[in-house]
Amino acid sequence: MLLEDARNSVVDVADLNQLKHELNRLQPVDVGDYITQLPEKQRAIAFRLLNKSQAIDVFEYLPPEVQEELIDSLHDAQVVQLVEEMSPDDRAELFDELPAKVVKRLLQQLSTEQRQATATLLGYPEGTAGRVMTTEYVWLREGLTIGEALSKIRRQDEDKETIYYAYVTDDNRKLVRVVSLRQLLFTFPDVLIREIASDRVIKVQTETPQEEVARIMKRYDLIAIPVVDREERLVGIITIDDVIDILEEEATEDIQKLAGVSGGDDGALAPPLMTIRKRLPWLLAIMALYIGASSAIAPFQPVIASVPLLAVIMPLFSNTGGTVGVQALTVTIRGLGIGEVTPKDTLKILKKELTAGLGTALALGTTMVLLSMIWASPSERWVGVIAGMVMATNTLVAVTLGTFLPMGLKRLKLDPALISGPLVTTMLDAIGFMIFLSLISFALNVLHLQH
Amino acid sequence: MLLEDARNSVVDVADLNQLKHELNRLQPVDVGDYITQLPEKQRAIAFRLLNKSQAIDVFEYLPPEVQEELIDSLHDAQVVQLVEEMSPDDRAELFDELPAKVVKRLLQQLSTEQRQATATLLGYPEGTAGRVMTTEYVWLREGLTIGEALSKIRRQDEDKETIYYAYVTDDNRKLVRVVSLRQLLFTFPDVLIREIASDRVIKVQTETPQEEVARIMKRYDLIAIPVVDREERLVGIITIDDVIDILEEEATEDIQKLAGVSGGDDGALAPPLMTIRKRLPWLLAIMALYIGASSAIAPFQPVIASVPLLAVIMPLFSNTGGTVGVQALTVTIRGLGIGEVTPKDTLKILKKELTAGLGTALALGTTMVLLSMIWASPSERWVGVIAGMVMATNTLVAVTLGTFLPMGLKRLKLDPALISGPLVTTMLDAIGFMIFLSLISFALNVLHLQH
Repeated sequence: MLLEDARNSVVDVADLNQLKHELNRLQPVDVGDYITQLPEKQRAIAFRLLNKSQAIDVFEYLPPEVQEELIDSLHDAQVVQLVEEMSPDDRAELFDELPAKVVKRLLQQLSTEQRQATATLLGYPEGTAGRVMTTEYVWLREGLTIGEALSKIRRQDEDKETIYYAYVTDDNRKLVRVVSLRQLLFTFPDVLIREIASDRVIKVQTETPQEEVARIMKRYDLIAIPVVDREERLVGIITIDDVIDILEEEATEDIQKLAGVSGGDDGALAPPLMTIRKRLPWLLAIMALYIGASSAIAPFQPVIASVPLLAVIMPLFSNTGGTVGVQALTVTIRGLGIGEVTPKDTLKILKKELTAGLGTALALGTTMVLLSMIWASPSERWVGVIAGMVMATNTLVAVTLGTFLPMGLKRLKLDPALISGPLVTTMLDAIGFMIFLSLISFALNVLHLQH
Repeated sequence: MLLEDARNSVVDVADLNQLKHELNRLQPVDVGDYITQLPEKQRAIAFRLLNKSQAIDVFEYLPPEVQEELIDSLHDAQVVQLVEEMSPDDRAELFDELPAKVVKRLLQQLSTEQRQATATLLGYPEGTAGRVMTTEYVWLREGLTIGEALSKIRRQDEDKETIYYAYVTDDNRKLVRVVSLRQLLFTFPDVLIREIASDRVIKVQTETPQEEVARIMKRYDLIAIPVVDREERLVGIITIDDVIDILEEEATEDIQKLAGVSGGDDGALAPPLMTIRKRLPWLLAIMALYIGASSAIAPFQPVIASVPLLAVIMPLFSNTGGTVGVQALTVTIRGLGIGEVTPKDTLKILKKELTAGLGTALALGTTMVLLSMIWASPSERWVGVIAGMVMATNTLVAVTLGTFLPMGLKRLKLDPALISGPLVTTMLDAIGFMIFLSLISFALNVLHLQH
């Protein structure tokens, strides 16, 4: 509601002067959204209405493709100023998207300090702490007093991403302590930093995966975390706003992979070709798996011909078993994702899933038998009994697969979400059908249950 | 790794004195985890080793059932002290879980101030800003100077959840401005608060749903947000650590509902009965739906008897169509969940999904036809052609359902995740089978394609 109002209040303004006034008064992220949804040609016009500091703030909130567009249509001097003022982590993200030629040109025009900061970040692999950190943080020497520290913080420019923690380094720039601004404010100015700063510093390495950084910050309720290199030297910090984005991205990826959508870029508004590229491979994989499964099912065609009721029962069978598997799979993958469980808990979870599965198996098997009383003619009711038994078995197989597969992948240090829901469903189909059709065939040929 | 080390270092300690030393030195959350995983009888013993301030911090990190256990086994005076020192939002959460009798007893023993704070929070419905906010925040009167404000902040006790923003109220306690500690530090002490504090305050109402609070804080990169009542009076703040938990819970709920697991409490380690209660209803619902579908499919049994190949093709058919539907459903529900799209975008998304769906339909239909060349005898190849056509149609139906259903629910202000994956799969099965079997039957009886 709040956001809607903000956007509408912009859109309704006819007069250019008033628009200018509004655009400079609103929150940067709202102005960013407004500019993004304008027709391409009007974006640069609207952007030029912003005063310098607002322009810098808004620019960071634009999506990379709009940033690129503006870079093309603004004067070089303006562009350099914008890029120079971006925080190093946002700049690295933009440079990732821009054509190499443009990046090279921009890098040459940046100040030495900012050029080095950007080059450093771009040197770390994607998805690591080094890549998402910012180099703008507050650091203090151990020997300072609180009073000196506070005036040093006051003198540093306002650009630092957060001043709420200050990091204390020794003479070799090694990170040794951390102190919160809160502690600094609550202590007498002549006390030495080292007397109040804590030496229990929670930190990460440049190569720590970003998901792990997010987990640690969430666990310890931190609003910023320091990043050190292999020599324990302080090289950057990661702030809470980036962590929220990381956690959301991670959840989106888990959700999408479970549904058989690979990668994390298939947003609801992604271009159709991207969507096809993310989804079709899974669909074709499922079909390929069925070639295998079908060559095992095909020989049973005569069985199906003599008991056509099977074709009515099998889909129900398949869908319920698949759902049981996907339920267990989803709960396990999410549990791994939020760090609630680790591969060490495999047996514990399996025990729980099998206990719950046993109850479910009984309920589903019984329902199946009862249902087949509705569907089947009296002479075919034995099919329902077999179906009920296999459905119960299938339920237990389903929870076992749904738990074991992601746990196994995690133990092998692979992404547990590599096992998507459709994959589990397909496996369960193949296993269930095989058991079911074999039993039916056995009943027909050996027990002579049908006529 | 960091966490593992911390835990192991505790567990390995044999000597009680050293254990005491370790427990008082470690991060409260790690100590909380250590105590939680102890056998029930040892928990109170370990907890008693903590000094007062560590005990207070650790207590907040314990799960409600362990908190309850400790409340039972500690002296009343100790319990009251612990509960008195908890932050009001954590206390409200604990009281939610405790038996009413215990809550009543504890409330009576709290200080008036804390009792009122808790009663206020418990008065708001679950899942609203009022319920998750804390009443411990920094507020200032408009007329103060920066210097006066800073010494007021210094004088307030250290309990405030965050001192990084101070909220400025008028004489009626109405929230009028906000100022960051950063701004206070960077300005001369004799400047008046009202000259630097911003009047563009981003705030929420007590009844704002917690998910919306989380979205707003994420959007504007806030580390705290003020909560006002209907008269615009400041009543509390919500801090970023709570928001991260809300976002994660919300993602977990979306993921689980998509897989057909209702509610949000079915963690990987939930008790089996809870698991059954969360999952079985969906499974039975699916079976119930199939009763409807099957009565429509059952009449086709003679068709299946004469073309048993159908029973081999139908599962493939069903699984692929279902997957396509779940892919579209998942991307749409997640898009709604993270606020990337709103019901207004329905047509835009549908257009995109149908464009992508057309490509997918062609690819899948063609593959189906080719596959049936492998499976089918020459005289049955026409079945493959029909299967390919229906598969293509089914793909388009699938993306339409996967997009429309959650969008429609959202427009009706219902939870879009009410439509789970299994539900969509079941619908698609019913629709697909019906079309397929009707066409096959038409081909057999009217076109006489078989023999």
